[in-house]
Amino acid sequence: MSDRIANAQLRGKVMTAEEAAQFVNHGDKVGVSGFTGAGYPKALPTAIAERAKAAHAKGDEYMIDLFTGASTAPDCDGVLAEADAIRFRTPYQSDPILRKKINEGITLYADYHLSESGLYVEQGFFGQMNVAIVEAVRITEEGHIVPSSSVGNNVEYLDNAEKIIIEVNSWQSEELEGMADIYRINKLPNRQPIPITDAGQRIGTTYIDIDLSKVVAVVETDAPDRNAPFSPIDEVSQAIAGHFLDFLEGEVAAGRLTYDSYTMQSGVGNVPNAVMAGLLDSKFENIKAYTEVIQDGMVDLIDAGKMTVASATSFSLSPEYAENMNRDAAKYRETIILRPQQISNHPEVVRRLGLICTNGLIEADIYGNVNSTNVSGSRIMNGVGGSADFTRNGFISSFITPSVAKGGAISAFVPFASHIDHTEQDVKVIISEYGYADLRGLAPRERVSKIIALAHPDYRPLLEEYYDRALNIAKEKNIMQTPHDLATAFSFHQRFLETGSMK
Amino acid sequence: MSDRIANAQLRGKVMTAEEAAQFVNHGDKVGVSGFTGAGYPKALPTAIAERAKAAHAKGDEYMIDLFTGASTAPDCDGVLAEADAIRFRTPYQSDPILRKKINEGITLYADYHLSESGLYVEQGFFGQMNVAIVEAVRITEEGHIVPSSSVGNNVEYLDNAEKIIIEVNSWQSEELEGMADIYRINKLPNRQPIPITDAGQRIGTTYIDIDLSKVVAVVETDAPDRNAPFSPIDEVSQAIAGHFLDFLEGEVAAGRLTYDSYTMQSGVGNVPNAVMAGLLDSKFENIKAYTEVIQDGMVDLIDAGKMTVASATSFSLSPEYAENMNRDAAKYRETIILRPQQISNHPEVVRRLGLICTNGLIEADIYGNVNSTNVSGSRIMNGVGGSADFTRNGFISSFITPSVAKGGAISAFVPFASHIDHTEQDVKVIISEYGYADLRGLAPRERVSKIIALAHPDYRPLLEEYYDRALNIAKEKNIMQTPHDLATAFSFHQRFLETGSMK
Repeated sequence: MSDRIANAQLRGKVMTAEEAAQFVNHGDKVGVSGFTGAGYPKALPTAIAERAKAAHAKGDEYMIDLFTGASTAPDCDGVLAEADAIRFRTPYQSDPILRKKINEGITLYADYHLSESGLYVEQGFFGQMNVAIVEAVRITEEGHIVPSSSVGNNVEYLDNAEKIIIEVNSWQSEELEGMADIYRINKLPNRQPIPITDAGQRIGTTYIDIDLSKVVAVVETDAPDRNAPFSPIDEVSQAIAGHFLDFLEGEVAAGRLTYDSYTMQSGVGNVPNAVMAGLLDSKFENIKAYTEVIQDGMVDLIDAGKMTVASATSFSLSPEYAENMNRDAAKYRETIILRPQQISNHPEVVRRLGLICTNGLIEADIYGNVNSTNVSGSRIMNGVGGSADFTRNGFISSFITPSVAKGGAISAFVPFASHIDHTEQDVKVIISEYGYADLRGLAPRERVSKIIALAHPDYRPLLEEYYDRALNIAKEKNIMQTPHDLATAFSFHQRFLETGSMK
Repeated sequence: MSDRIANAQLRGKVMTAEEAAQFVNHGDKVGVSGFTGAGYPKALPTAIAERAKAAHAKGDEYMIDLFTGASTAPDCDGVLAEADAIRFRTPYQSDPILRKKINEGITLYADYHLSESGLYVEQGFFGQMNVAIVEAVRITEEGHIVPSSSVGNNVEYLDNAEKIIIEVNSWQSEELEGMADIYRINKLPNRQPIPITDAGQRIGTTYIDIDLSKVVAVVETDAPDRNAPFSPIDEVSQAIAGHFLDFLEGEVAAGRLTYDSYTMQSGVGNVPNAVMAGLLDSKFENIKAYTEVIQDGMVDLIDAGKMTVASATSFSLSPEYAENMNRDAAKYRETIILRPQQISNHPEVVRRLGLICTNGLIEADIYGNVNSTNVSGSRIMNGVGGSADFTRNGFISSFITPSVAKGGAISAFVPFASHIDHTEQDVKVIISEYGYADLRGLAPRERVSKIIALAHPDYRPLLEEYYDRALNIAKEKNIMQTPHDLATAFSFHQRFLETGSMK
């Protein structure tokens, strides 16, 4: 047995994943660790999926409600979805098989802000949680859990579930210990200010204390986190990064920002990684991150001495970077802090620290409303994630996107966003490869030409025609605040659903 | 000269409103006090409007950009709009003449969250503010401003404008002094936690200290605040209030709430007033309010000993209640605190205090997205106000609405909200006279029948037909997360625009 299980009582609970899966019953609400492809349980999901398949083969029902930090990986969401073992899923997902099951109507998915999902569990909004399954680097002598490569909603699930299953993963470096900063917000009516005034501040413990009597199983694993590699930076991403840096330079020139101590939040993906590559060669120094996930580009900034602190709840590293992080965890834990997602994404701290936020989008409309979740209003992509936690409360909130997707068949700029996750009040700057639109202080009609200029040239005439029609109607009816032609507001999406292209 | 102007230097600046209006030039960005019909300047707006009319008569341009706390009154927004003197307006309005000018395209209006508009001024998002015009109860010997019946964005405008004009209104009771609690959040990068952990806590001063050298004029006035009286409680409002109380009782039964110390936020209007009348006869005791405005119903709760503290940024009282408040201000200031709207609406404090929020709406769609601002997607009503500050961050966020408006021609429940100000992730409970829909923890398709049940019986079949069509498309195309029929998503609104009725 691994010496990573230092508590005598919990050593007595060690068993196989198959044995542990017997504690997870049909209908259970199961909260697991994991945020992006990091820190999720590696063995139990497969074992639960096997139980589900066996039950289904016998004609029995077996489905669970699955709660996570955010997305997980094929060996967690993927295997469970494949086995039709997930009735309900929250608060975020991105696995292709799970996404397919949701869009087929087999799994119900409720999208929530990542700063709030754990809070809702605490507040009883989902009812009683039955099982928490959490990956650990090790269990201390006292029985404390040392989280692995993500913290996510671990605390909320461990605190609120009736039963606890711990996976101790020896693939995870023991030197990750010290990276986590575990802090619980008091329950109502005794909540106090969160005492973070700088991204780098530690306010809690490096472990999670749990009720040992709730632990029903400890399972040993030795399996890697699974995150997809990032794509090489392409021309479009590079152009977007360039415009983003131009925007930042403009803020410095206007006296609203300095080259020292700029604090960033960034969504995950190839374009954000290109932005970080751009920052490497910029005049900005002593950059800080208060964000959700540490990605490759941030590690490069840290290595280059440009980034002095990175606070997040998880890693989203390519396999190569994940190996490096594991090897050099003792070094990186000087600079990196992993917090519960309630804290990493908390509106209170986000607003206080004055973040400059960049997130991706599916589409924006001509007035700046942003869709982050549902393609053509109906088909779920991933979820809102933390984008709204940051966008609403950031100092300057920007969205970055290529102007088109699917080889030009989908425009990121449409007459009316077919699902709205970020409202016109919250969206301050939008950036595509064609430039940036600074929407601050502009009334809706003033935003239109700036947003259309971000669209791909193939789509600009279509957007202009729409706006002309909308203006004519608005003038006639004296409804000029936000001109729309409701009859053709979704014409781009209807064409896409019918022909496969918005053109 | 009034002895309310105790500072010698500022006594030397006393002049008429007409003289003071000469400091307000075409193109100026002017920030005024006022939040609902309380505490706005009573004399300068008319004097500025006269300047505008005189200029326009000569063929000269004269328009200002007008920044307020929230809405004001006919003798502020109304007179300026009537004179076509407002080029740009933010962050909220409700005056009928101004609304008409905006919808005719004469005035540009940018809608912002009330907790953020002052912050944007501080952060330079609107450029340099030129003039601040603020109503005061009195000016102290040191030259400090004692705010009158609203605090709003006074601090931000006084701090950031180049010139200051003070109106000292002797109609306002001198005993309002002590009600205001003025607290400034440090500028970036030195922001600290806001030290409020209870609605009733005072953390600042009773006055606003200003840069005396910026004061160009002091004007004496003697004019009442102007708020509209509330309507008597009707059957529909009473039914909504009843369902709201049922919902609260359910929360107590579920152990998520107690009868002691429930902290409320409430939008303004007749339905919220009915809710407060319902609370008068309820089991809830030691009720607290952390909200935007003090309205009649809260005063009744205070008088009855049911409400022990009310924190807001302004009053929205009927004329009778306003007279009483003025008369008994010394008594009420024991219970009532008026804060800057950055603080009264701050996400940090709202989330910490665990508010139960109720706000009105224009329409909700079958998935729980809420439109608070634009009728039929285009025509501005008032604005988002503070509803999103509270809704996103509250403990439980509810929307209350009659099922129909305009004698049944408009349904509050539609297939697709024609403007979205509150996203599906944020809207937790919706209440009409037909009951309440508790949406917490439900995936989109699970919400539909609960929301349709809130609609007027005349509209339920239309909504059900829409959902059936949407479901058929979604099943065929495997886009089941949020089924929609985009071709008819706005059919209710199109009918309304064409025929004057959604039926």
